[in-house]
Amino acid sequence: MKLTHFTDYSLRVLIFLAAEPTRRATIAEVAEAFDVSAHHLTKVVHFLGKEGWLANVRGKGGGMELALPPQHIVVGRVVRAAEGADLPAECFGDDPDHCPIARVCRLRGVFKEAVDAFYAVLDRYTLADLVQNRAALGRVLGIQALEPRGVAGRA
Amino acid sequence: MKLTHFTDYSLRVLIFLAAEPTRRATIAEVAEAFDVSAHHLTKVVHFLGKEGWLANVRGKGGGMELALPPQHIVVGRVVRAAEGADLPAECFGDDPDHCPIARVCRLRGVFKEAVDAFYAVLDRYTLADLVQNRAALGRVLGIQALEPRGVAGRA
Repeated sequence: MKLTHFTDYSLRVLIFLAAEPTRRATIAEVAEAFDVSAHHLTKVVHFLGKEGWLANVRGKGGGMELALPPQHIVVGRVVRAAEGADLPAECFGDDPDHCPIARVCRLRGVFKEAVDAFYAVLDRYTLADLVQNRAALGRVLGIQALEPRGVAGRA
Repeated sequence: MKLTHFTDYSLRVLIFLAAEPTRRATIAEVAEAFDVSAHHLTKVVHFLGKEGWLANVRGKGGGMELALPPQHIVVGRVVRAAEGADLPAECFGDDPDHCPIARVCRLRGVFKEAVDAFYAVLDRYTLADLVQNRAALGRVLGIQALEPRGVAGRA
């Protein structure tokens, strides 16, 4: 069972932004932190913005930030939206004639029930649950919190 | 969320064999019924045999048949075995260093729980549940039950 890279990257961008909510991020920063292509992330960021989870702030000090508090971003909704119409097997397609037995086979119903159970678990978690250890995440991702000008380096 | 074609074909071969258990089948027949490549099915049949779900009977009247009654073939076990180590996102890989935050991110645990829920549903169904409407399946797949010699065609 595989989720798409698009889903994987969508979650990573949100985790990056939630790990240090006091500062805005750029696509280049996220791409570097996860060692993934900035080109792919551009589409992901556009998608997250369209869905209302990410906001782009222009101008000096601008960049990407979460558009909602992390506890309001439900993991199951992000994964469902990112996966789109990709369903687990051919018999799930929009065109039941893809598989000749689609109309008489019970597999479709069984898979539907299993997929619903999968998403029911993801619906119980929010982005806030994923970044409970924000300090460790920030360290691993090389994210530095903004500090009052002049104070950084003295501590 | 996608299962592999290998899993899809594994289930189809088992459904074909369970739809009309009074006769043995050939790879060519299954390939034609589902309009899929016989080449791919050869690997699938080998896998199903190795796992103990399918038997090949040689000689005249030989062919593939189920090695177990359909009610003893659990859908979740077939899907798990066919999917192998393919897990839903990069953070599930054997090498946690694939993703730099694997060690501090809670997503892995959340996905594990969701995947377990997915398979828990599939574990509640057997091949017998999938072919409850055997007569309709047999018709769609063009499978004819064996009839006593000389009787076919008279009815």
